[in-house]
Amino acid sequence: MKKLILLLPIIIGMAFTFQKKNKVIFFGDSITEAGVKAGGYIVRVDSMCKAEGKSNSYEFVGAGISGNKVYDLYLRMEDDVLVKNPDIVIIYIGVNDVWHKSSFGTGTDADKFEKFYQAIINRLKAKNIKIALCTPAAIGEKTDFSNQQDGDLNKYSNIIRSIAAKNNLPLIDLRKLFLDYNLKNNSENKDRGILTTDGVHLNATGNQFVADQMWKTVKGF
Amino acid sequence: MKKLILLLPIIIGMAFTFQKKNKVIFFGDSITEAGVKAGGYIVRVDSMCKAEGKSNSYEFVGAGISGNKVYDLYLRMEDDVLVKNPDIVIIYIGVNDVWHKSSFGTGTDADKFEKFYQAIINRLKAKNIKIALCTPAAIGEKTDFSNQQDGDLNKYSNIIRSIAAKNNLPLIDLRKLFLDYNLKNNSENKDRGILTTDGVHLNATGNQFVADQMWKTVKGF
Amino acid sequence: MKKLILLLPIIIGMAFTFQKKNKVIFFGDSITEAGVKAGGYIVRVDSMCKAEGKSNSYEFVGAGISGNKVYDLYLRMEDDVLVKNPDIVIIYIGVNDVWHKSSFGTGTDADKFEKFYQAIINRLKAKNIKIALCTPAAIGEKTDFSNQQDGDLNKYSNIIRSIAAKNNLPLIDLRKLFLDYNLKNNSENKDRGILTTDGVHLNATGNQFVADQMWKTVKGF
Amino acid sequence: MKKLILLLPIIIGMAFTFQKKNKVIFFGDSITEAGVKAGGYIVRVDSMCKAEGKSNSYEFVGAGISGNKVYDLYLRMEDDVLVKNPDIVIIYIGVNDVWHKSSFGTGTDADKFEKFYQAIINRLKAKNIKIALCTPAAIGEKTDFSNQQDGDLNKYSNIIRSIAAKNNLPLIDLRKLFLDYNLKNNSENKDRGILTTDGVHLNATGNQFVADQMWKTVKGF
Repeated sequence: MKKLILLLPIIIGMAFTFQKKNKVIFFGDSITEAGVKAGGYIVRVDSMCKAEGKSNSYEFVGAGISGNKVYDLYLRMEDDVLVKNPDIVIIYIGVNDVWHKSSFGTGTDADKFEKFYQAIINRLKAKNIKIALCTPAAIGEKTDFSNQQDGDLNKYSNIIRSIAAKNNLPLIDLRKLFLDYNLKNNSENKDRGILTTDGVHLNATGNQFVADQMWKTVKGF
Repeated sequence: MKKLILLLPIIIGMAFTFQKKNKVIFFGDSITEAGVKAGGYIVRVDSMCKAEGKSNSYEFVGAGISGNKVYDLYLRMEDDVLVKNPDIVIIYIGVNDVWHKSSFGTGTDADKFEKFYQAIINRLKAKNIKIALCTPAAIGEKTDFSNQQDGDLNKYSNIIRSIAAKNNLPLIDLRKLFLDYNLKNNSENKDRGILTTDGVHLNATGNQFVADQMWKTVKGF
Repeated sequence: MKKLILLLPIIIGMAFTFQKKNKVIFFGDSITEAGVKAGGYIVRVDSMCKAEGKSNSYEFVGAGISGNKVYDLYLRMEDDVLVKNPDIVIIYIGVNDVWHKSSFGTGTDADKFEKFYQAIINRLKAKNIKIALCTPAAIGEKTDFSNQQDGDLNKYSNIIRSIAAKNNLPLIDLRKLFLDYNLKNNSENKDRGILTTDGVHLNATGNQFVADQMWKTVKGF
Repeated sequence: MKKLILLLPIIIGMAFTFQKKNKVIFFGDSITEAGVKAGGYIVRVDSMCKAEGKSNSYEFVGAGISGNKVYDLYLRMEDDVLVKNPDIVIIYIGVNDVWHKSSFGTGTDADKFEKFYQAIINRLKAKNIKIALCTPAAIGEKTDFSNQQDGDLNKYSNIIRSIAAKNNLPLIDLRKLFLDYNLKNNSENKDRGILTTDGVHLNATGNQFVADQMWKTVKGF
């Protein structure tokens, strides 16, 4: 009996030691690259996690690179995701695939967007990694679908929704969620300043908004 | 008395002779170029006019050229419109200004679209010509705003709506009318085949639909 | 006699007063807009003119606006050129017609570039204004034709050369002159810094180089 | 002695059996897709190989898909190349990476072109596969560098030349070879019809021209 009492703290300690944290990687573009900076959505997810006393259960890693399109994720997924052995990967891509069409002539064809997206999923699935998908939130926050890329962004969001359905994966439909939020909070039909600083990149409200969705999804796995 | 009776047909004939027809010019792109062909919307306006016994009051002229953007109209308006001394000009432009951005890299900047559009109006107004404006109907007939150019087409339609309001001119809002029609008649969310053959150019239903709007507007002046 | 002597200076003064200066308008884009600033090519032409004691014969006016393409010149030529009754107009346009294809999707089709260019010339000719044409010098100064827009810039320069020949107008072939200069002075195949600051806009050497060509052409009329 | 004579054909047969053919895969876009059709460059390489009595030494496989860009090759290289265990892979890509910028807004950024190209090479090298690289021959055959994409095509060809040098790999510089041929055989500066049907895809002369280069390179390994 005495022995057991003495051992108890050690056993509990071992329990904590052996409890592997869930490693969550956020895989995306500049929006995700900014997510690990002060006030960024990944930092906020981490804070919420701690506040709920779950910091022993989760570890959050940002893997966002500015200017990335879907095929860039595919190219670097070995080095930036797979070697880190994540439990969960949240894919958040698509803005540049659409945007760079008009700004550089180097966007991504819709059929190839789908192909590369599915190829990323296949490789993650092969390693039994849990996956969630995000639709690209916005290029401009106007609510009457008169932002230049709205049609194309809706088209690519539809592709992602379809991929999520086909692969039976959770979808964080930021495109829809942002629009709903703007319909309530952007009565002046402004193109920025509600959830973003420039129509694309998240302001404080936007980072918290995305963080809320991400954290809810992570806990839901 | 006898004399008068004899003169009557002559007087009536003179009346017809002196009654100037209202010359209506439809000024636009390939959609309008096709309008003067069999089954085209201008041919249909002409038929409706005749059926209503008003062929002595109106004369319809097509001035559409394939691939035209707003600045092409401005360049050729002297030769193709002003020299013909029209009473009414209906401007129907905007599809290529948006579309050619992604297909050739030669679309029209939004601010310049507005400038050239206003410049056309100014020159028509200076000649006391009556004017009506059309918004560009569609590049793709999907109803969920997921046609690639929907955002930009909405943006340019907003510009035209604003020009119509500023200049106090009648607006034929084909963009809105096509969407409303598709919401009722395109439950499968198809990208063509409802009012267009290819998402842009009018099929028989589309030509009649546009003709109805045009004829109503012409009579309204 | 006494009277005449007293009047002589006045008569000479009147002679100078009545000698109309040749008004030279430089009509173009941001390169020309910068031409009237300190160190700009128009300021330098003016200085050379003064240094040669010809300031009573010439007056130089800048009519350059940033971002302008050929059709922008056409649109504003009444207000910015014709109302000023110039004797000579030097057209220097084309960079944005090519460049904006990839950066905004709003460049100018080659056939329309030619049409608008010719339309500008026709209106100037109708007023008996002397005209000189410039080819667009550079978008990147590499000498092995590996600047992204080199092919298109050569194509549009060929169009201008052809217009100059057809209309029997003097050509300031800056495209060729810049290349020749770079072949001698840019042995490292740099994309900027020889005659331009950024591959497009003129540095001090470039402004003087263009000024030399312009001044030579103006005196040649 | 008698036995040996009887065995001889068997031994010779075994020798043939055990002589492994060199499998050569041509990896590319529509130009290579057409290479396996009648008169195509791969068919011609095969014919030359047979004519030289070397058909026991080489086997030729086409792996070209229309519209492919460098990242498409990367995505499908496992299925279409690596599983086939080639001895030699000849990479012939780049036209669409440049061309699709202006025709669809979906070309490839220069830095990413280089990254994906190098990634393909790395994976081939890891399997000890011999590699040769081709520069993209032409988008238009004009010889004065006035084909729209000449500048960009030269830029991407420079990237490939640099990759070949860095990786110490044989280069089939079709870009340079086509230009040299055209300088001799295209005195009218036509944009097609010398080595291509449409400025891009090979005519009979072009297919033989490319076949000659390919066959020379294959034998040189």
